[in-house]
Amino acid sequence: MNHTILILNGPNLNMLGSREPEIYGTQTLDDLQQVCIAHAALLSIALTFVQSNHEGELVDAIQSVRSAHDGLIINAGAFSHTSVAIHDALMMVDKPIIEVHLSNIFQREAFRHHSYVSRPAKGVICGFGVNSYVLALSAMKDLLS
Amino acid sequence: MNHTILILNGPNLNMLGSREPEIYGTQTLDDLQQVCIAHAALLSIALTFVQSNHEGELVDAIQSVRSAHDGLIINAGAFSHTSVAIHDALMMVDKPIIEVHLSNIFQREAFRHHSYVSRPAKGVICGFGVNSYVLALSAMKDLLS
Amino acid sequence: MNHTILILNGPNLNMLGSREPEIYGTQTLDDLQQVCIAHAALLSIALTFVQSNHEGELVDAIQSVRSAHDGLIINAGAFSHTSVAIHDALMMVDKPIIEVHLSNIFQREAFRHHSYVSRPAKGVICGFGVNSYVLALSAMKDLLS
Amino acid sequence: MNHTILILNGPNLNMLGSREPEIYGTQTLDDLQQVCIAHAALLSIALTFVQSNHEGELVDAIQSVRSAHDGLIINAGAFSHTSVAIHDALMMVDKPIIEVHLSNIFQREAFRHHSYVSRPAKGVICGFGVNSYVLALSAMKDLLS
Amino acid sequence: MNHTILILNGPNLNMLGSREPEIYGTQTLDDLQQVCIAHAALLSIALTFVQSNHEGELVDAIQSVRSAHDGLIINAGAFSHTSVAIHDALMMVDKPIIEVHLSNIFQREAFRHHSYVSRPAKGVICGFGVNSYVLALSAMKDLLS
Amino acid sequence: MNHTILILNGPNLNMLGSREPEIYGTQTLDDLQQVCIAHAALLSIALTFVQSNHEGELVDAIQSVRSAHDGLIINAGAFSHTSVAIHDALMMVDKPIIEVHLSNIFQREAFRHHSYVSRPAKGVICGFGVNSYVLALSAMKDLLS
Amino acid sequence: MNHTILILNGPNLNMLGSREPEIYGTQTLDDLQQVCIAHAALLSIALTFVQSNHEGELVDAIQSVRSAHDGLIINAGAFSHTSVAIHDALMMVDKPIIEVHLSNIFQREAFRHHSYVSRPAKGVICGFGVNSYVLALSAMKDLLS
Amino acid sequence: MNHTILILNGPNLNMLGSREPEIYGTQTLDDLQQVCIAHAALLSIALTFVQSNHEGELVDAIQSVRSAHDGLIINAGAFSHTSVAIHDALMMVDKPIIEVHLSNIFQREAFRHHSYVSRPAKGVICGFGVNSYVLALSAMKDLLS
Amino acid sequence: MNHTILILNGPNLNMLGSREPEIYGTQTLDDLQQVCIAHAALLSIALTFVQSNHEGELVDAIQSVRSAHDGLIINAGAFSHTSVAIHDALMMVDKPIIEVHLSNIFQREAFRHHSYVSRPAKGVICGFGVNSYVLALSAMKDLLS
Amino acid sequence: MNHTILILNGPNLNMLGSREPEIYGTQTLDDLQQVCIAHAALLSIALTFVQSNHEGELVDAIQSVRSAHDGLIINAGAFSHTSVAIHDALMMVDKPIIEVHLSNIFQREAFRHHSYVSRPAKGVICGFGVNSYVLALSAMKDLLS
Amino acid sequence: MNHTILILNGPNLNMLGSREPEIYGTQTLDDLQQVCIAHAALLSIALTFVQSNHEGELVDAIQSVRSAHDGLIINAGAFSHTSVAIHDALMMVDKPIIEVHLSNIFQREAFRHHSYVSRPAKGVICGFGVNSYVLALSAMKDLLS
Amino acid sequence: MNHTILILNGPNLNMLGSREPEIYGTQTLDDLQQVCIAHAALLSIALTFVQSNHEGELVDAIQSVRSAHDGLIINAGAFSHTSVAIHDALMMVDKPIIEVHLSNIFQREAFRHHSYVSRPAKGVICGFGVNSYVLALSAMKDLLS
Repeated sequence: MNHTILILNGPNLNMLGSREPEIYGTQTLDDLQQVCIAHAALLSIALTFVQSNHEGELVDAIQSVRSAHDGLIINAGAFSHTSVAIHDALMMVDKPIIEVHLSNIFQREAFRHHSYVSRPAKGVICGFGVNSYVLALSAMKDLLS
Repeated sequence: MNHTILILNGPNLNMLGSREPEIYGTQTLDDLQQVCIAHAALLSIALTFVQSNHEGELVDAIQSVRSAHDGLIINAGAFSHTSVAIHDALMMVDKPIIEVHLSNIFQREAFRHHSYVSRPAKGVICGFGVNSYVLALSAMKDLLS
Repeated sequence: MNHTILILNGPNLNMLGSREPEIYGTQTLDDLQQVCIAHAALLSIALTFVQSNHEGELVDAIQSVRSAHDGLIINAGAFSHTSVAIHDALMMVDKPIIEVHLSNIFQREAFRHHSYVSRPAKGVICGFGVNSYVLALSAMKDLLS
Repeated sequence: MNHTILILNGPNLNMLGSREPEIYGTQTLDDLQQVCIAHAALLSIALTFVQSNHEGELVDAIQSVRSAHDGLIINAGAFSHTSVAIHDALMMVDKPIIEVHLSNIFQREAFRHHSYVSRPAKGVICGFGVNSYVLALSAMKDLLS
Repeated sequence: MNHTILILNGPNLNMLGSREPEIYGTQTLDDLQQVCIAHAALLSIALTFVQSNHEGELVDAIQSVRSAHDGLIINAGAFSHTSVAIHDALMMVDKPIIEVHLSNIFQREAFRHHSYVSRPAKGVICGFGVNSYVLALSAMKDLLS
Repeated sequence: MNHTILILNGPNLNMLGSREPEIYGTQTLDDLQQVCIAHAALLSIALTFVQSNHEGELVDAIQSVRSAHDGLIINAGAFSHTSVAIHDALMMVDKPIIEVHLSNIFQREAFRHHSYVSRPAKGVICGFGVNSYVLALSAMKDLLS
Repeated sequence: MNHTILILNGPNLNMLGSREPEIYGTQTLDDLQQVCIAHAALLSIALTFVQSNHEGELVDAIQSVRSAHDGLIINAGAFSHTSVAIHDALMMVDKPIIEVHLSNIFQREAFRHHSYVSRPAKGVICGFGVNSYVLALSAMKDLLS
Repeated sequence: MNHTILILNGPNLNMLGSREPEIYGTQTLDDLQQVCIAHAALLSIALTFVQSNHEGELVDAIQSVRSAHDGLIINAGAFSHTSVAIHDALMMVDKPIIEVHLSNIFQREAFRHHSYVSRPAKGVICGFGVNSYVLALSAMKDLLS
Repeated sequence: MNHTILILNGPNLNMLGSREPEIYGTQTLDDLQQVCIAHAALLSIALTFVQSNHEGELVDAIQSVRSAHDGLIINAGAFSHTSVAIHDALMMVDKPIIEVHLSNIFQREAFRHHSYVSRPAKGVICGFGVNSYVLALSAMKDLLS
Repeated sequence: MNHTILILNGPNLNMLGSREPEIYGTQTLDDLQQVCIAHAALLSIALTFVQSNHEGELVDAIQSVRSAHDGLIINAGAFSHTSVAIHDALMMVDKPIIEVHLSNIFQREAFRHHSYVSRPAKGVICGFGVNSYVLALSAMKDLLS
Repeated sequence: MNHTILILNGPNLNMLGSREPEIYGTQTLDDLQQVCIAHAALLSIALTFVQSNHEGELVDAIQSVRSAHDGLIINAGAFSHTSVAIHDALMMVDKPIIEVHLSNIFQREAFRHHSYVSRPAKGVICGFGVNSYVLALSAMKDLLS
Repeated sequence: MNHTILILNGPNLNMLGSREPEIYGTQTLDDLQQVCIAHAALLSIALTFVQSNHEGELVDAIQSVRSAHDGLIINAGAFSHTSVAIHDALMMVDKPIIEVHLSNIFQREAFRHHSYVSRPAKGVICGFGVNSYVLALSAMKDLLS
């Protein structure tokens, strides 16, 4: 593998498949990870997955990118809208960051329209379900080339 | 027991009794739990108690309701006003939820007047001290019947 | 009876049962009053009921609490959100006040999220339909003991 | 008497003397009226007093000024802050209007800082307790001369 | 007559003709009613007129539409901008509602630009003086056909 | 014909009939025009129709009213909410202007609640579908008489 | 004389009589002072007058009240709306303070609706022209008795 | 080709390559189109390109999607932030829509943080330069499969 | 001539002379152009004039400055307050830009107080009628020297 | 000389040349005054210069225009954004007033985008450095002719 | 040692030295701690250090102050701006609290201008880098004396 | 002495000791100055003190720092919250600036939470009474070393 990428999922994404399937679809987090691994293999990218409901663990994981990964794909879930701590951790990462969301956050409640992740990220992809992650992998490949 | 209910208390509620007693009274969290257990017994309800100062642990506990409990009584404390993660976890719970507060949050600072817990909850009870929980147990009994 | 309590209902609550039943249920105001009387009897509480669509009559009734009742349970309906006059009348009451709502007002239009009744009230109970009143009677009993 | 003036008092002013005496003092509405009559006599002004907790009755009384009085002194109480209907009724009065308040409304809650009465009024006097009315009578005499 | 319609006028509309004639014209409320009766006769519509300065009486009248009328034409005057109680009463009416205003409320003070009547109404007609009511009768005829 | 009136329709109204029929109905713009012509004939009014998706063409058409028409009925569609240029063009028209909308814009998204057309217009009619235009023609006839 | 009072006038009040006479009348500041002296004599009050266009001089004058006067009548003019320094100086005065304005500031531009003087003042009198000062003297007499 | 897609570019995108290259890169609009055609060929997608500085022409083009294309990729440029007309046109399209931007609009001026295109779009991709379009083509392929 | 300058006028400026003459004066756009030509001749500046009611045509004209002119004087009229597209086009111009207005926009409606043209412009001149353009020519001469 | 004009400079303009030269240039206030005198001589205008860091002195100077000058050119510096006192003084001036700024205040911090000087001024010129004053002199000449 | 003090550092402060050194300097958290220990020794103060990226752990640590320390110096980092839970925990501490920041938070993004830590703290010191902590130790010594 | 520092105190600080002692303590300004002199002597710093209630004098004093002092410690009092003129003067100072306040301004009225002094200052120290100045001297010493 040429590159190693961290895919970070925030709170409640462990419930994928059982949570509001009309918004998030019926695939589980494990399904999502299998789809990502398959696509990453085509791009010669190795993946590490972390999911946590704990803001502090996400901050710890983001800090690890500096030394352990070539890039970060992050769906910070609800913390996208509230966490300055995650914002600050991302500002310290000197590798490409891509923000993803399963749903189109701009079609939802007003409090989801602002994301603290967008500013430190290189780009944003949202609304395509699991395919948001696949597209992010392609985009990451392009950024790392 | 006919039903099993989770009673979830958020940050700083472990300090009950020593924290601003003019607002929260002098009863400790343990006192509160004993009062709840006594009242729940009359209603044939079994109780599980979780208290945490960690937002992530509260999210974990809320996720457990789906499989392990018949309902949830939650005082999310300060996280009521800031946590979209708890809001999202609550939206996934397919059991009755009741929001409680010891104090009348509408008499306090403006930043306590909005609660992310209120929307996913069935109802809200606040301002009656420990009795807020007792009333919530009665309300829960009614919802489960 | 040990205590006498005024239960005050504001505008349009006389239409209960025919008004938006998906929000307010199918019980009429008379049904609600019968349920309250039955529960109050168990608590040795005598009840007086007043319903009015007139803000001034509600103010008059609130002023009467001072001399004629031991406590007040109030669902000010739409006036909860607009009436400083009711707020001011409540501030003069030297007996316990409990605010109730049939629906969970925090799930509805933004203009229903603020209530002028909440500040002068001891506590708030909302979202449990007719049971909101029953719970308020129990809470009132506790406050008067 | 040379002039006849309507003194109009809004909601809860009938409770004067028993309502929050630290803000409003211990004089009753009847005391207030006697003080006004005594002062008005010195100015050759005859007084009519109306107090109501009903917005509509206040609108009716304001409409009567046009044909029955030479001027209006109004303490609209809580309706000062919410009633466009009173504002509109006052806009139709072709006689001098003076707004009075017992307390200094600018030292109180933010929702009391705006009054719909101020725009149609000639002037505003507030914060002097019962003396606010006495000063308003002197001011009215001057306006009518 | 084929249909019976309630025409409801709110506060200060009894002063029509003497109130700010540069905005509202010189016709009285009685004139307005005669014009409406004449036009309604052509449409085989019988009219009932209610005018009140009392919010509660307007709520009562709106509640009566359900059982006594085929439709409602309402000019709630100043209460358009402040009354959630009228809004709620209108939401319960299962007959066509048309909001009218004599003046173009969007050319006036900012606090007149929002009307609680508009949401429950089928449509809005404003700015044509007495003709606003005549147009509303034609529109009502069309809605009832 | 006694009068000649311009009926101006803004962006996307050419799609009438196929656009969100639950809001706008199934009649096409051509149907709408036929209904207007038939009604105008009864009022001895000749009609000119312009529809455009281009803000500049609407401004051009509004400027033409001054020399070529006796009045203007305008449904500026989405430009109602954003176009100061149309507002300014309307302010120069020295003939009666009536604003119409098919739907009741006050029941829709918040960004549709303000219209730059309302201030320069004599009156506003909305919510009656194609009949909004028919009513506007009657209102125009009255204004021109 | 029994009492000595400072009457303080802020910026541009030295131009009284020549400044926008439709708002402020044609009397000069000297005229105003003569009227005050005459009225104060009847009340056994001695007056000191200070007028300044300099915020700092007004602060200095307010600080002098503590040791040199029995009360303060202040028209801070434009500084009413902008000066926290004057607010702070007034908060240190342990004598009665009355705020006056010649015009009714609530009928004017929005930036004149808030006054930093109102909070530290005992009461507010505005809208009566020079008579605002005369009324304030009577009110001061009452406060000092 | 299996599918035909419209790629719509809004105002100033014809200047690509010469406009602020530190934000938008040095590739011209023609370069961008060649990259898209090459990638679309691999996906068996035929492309139509439209660029316009005229809001009306963009509305016209969007209306054409209904009958002439299988999907729409749109970079509305500055109109993203101001055009309700484009929003309304997009709401009528019954084919997949993807919003793209060359730059990460959330890192730029506050007035670029809201886009009227986001709500009617299925998903949003921004910040990847020309690659935003390539990713959108992949996403479109997935949506059409 | 030493320099060539584009003078660009936005929507409704073609109506100059007939539009609200109390604000804009009685000179026509042609008069304005003659005055500019005469003054420009003294400065050895050649002028091109474009006026359009179409936002897109203004964007096209602004884009042409880059290759065809030495500077731009722009009165974007109503588009000043709403057009991000014009803002973006101006940001690409590598020649001096001066914003002009006939009227003092800061004395008019609040929605005219912000202009998207001001940021990309070198300077702003407004309130001097046709002379605003003459002054802008002098300023431009100075900038080009 | 035919006319005499006051040029008034507010706080910190005495530091011109040493203050943030990238914004304000390297010319001193004395340089600026020499440039103005030279240009004014060509226009047969005599100049008086006042600079002060004291708001009160600026108010005094503005008041002097009424009797001592034919017009006023004012750069109120920081007081432009905060001083209602200067606004009020300017409203009393019955001679032409022109507001100038060295920098383009609309390119700077948000708190500099509103100026209390703009409303009473005839026109505004900003962004041209010392040349803003020269242009203002030309504009003043035109206003006085 | 006479006193024992807890120095609490929030999220991302473990990255000190490698995080945006132009803002935070090149000293590491360990360096910072050594500087504090050296200075504290001079003041006879013993120090305990806790750093965490987890909001809950910070709440736990704050709760421990009550029983284990004589005072608290806290740099809550990003949580300063978002954590009501930390605010509430601090409100329960009955020992002196000092808020510190390495950078001057008022020179940074608007979302860093409000700190929930400031209200419960005795005082605030920010902007002096590591020296902020040293000054806080001196201030703490003074508070404890 | 190695350094010379200006300590600047704003409006009402001359009243120290008699002003609201529960907020500001009982020490006078002279006491404060003696404490500063004593501490500065230990640091080999010579002090100059200026106190003024006049905004202009404070601006003058700030301008003098450039040539006459090595640093500035400023408590601008009420002007902190309103004076852009002081902000601008501070921006021109090329020596270290430290903002101090006796009280913790973040515990007080909302209008004291923003300070125009904070941005140009190196750091901020507030809430420690007279010790705020002592700490500022230590901080200044460190900055000058």
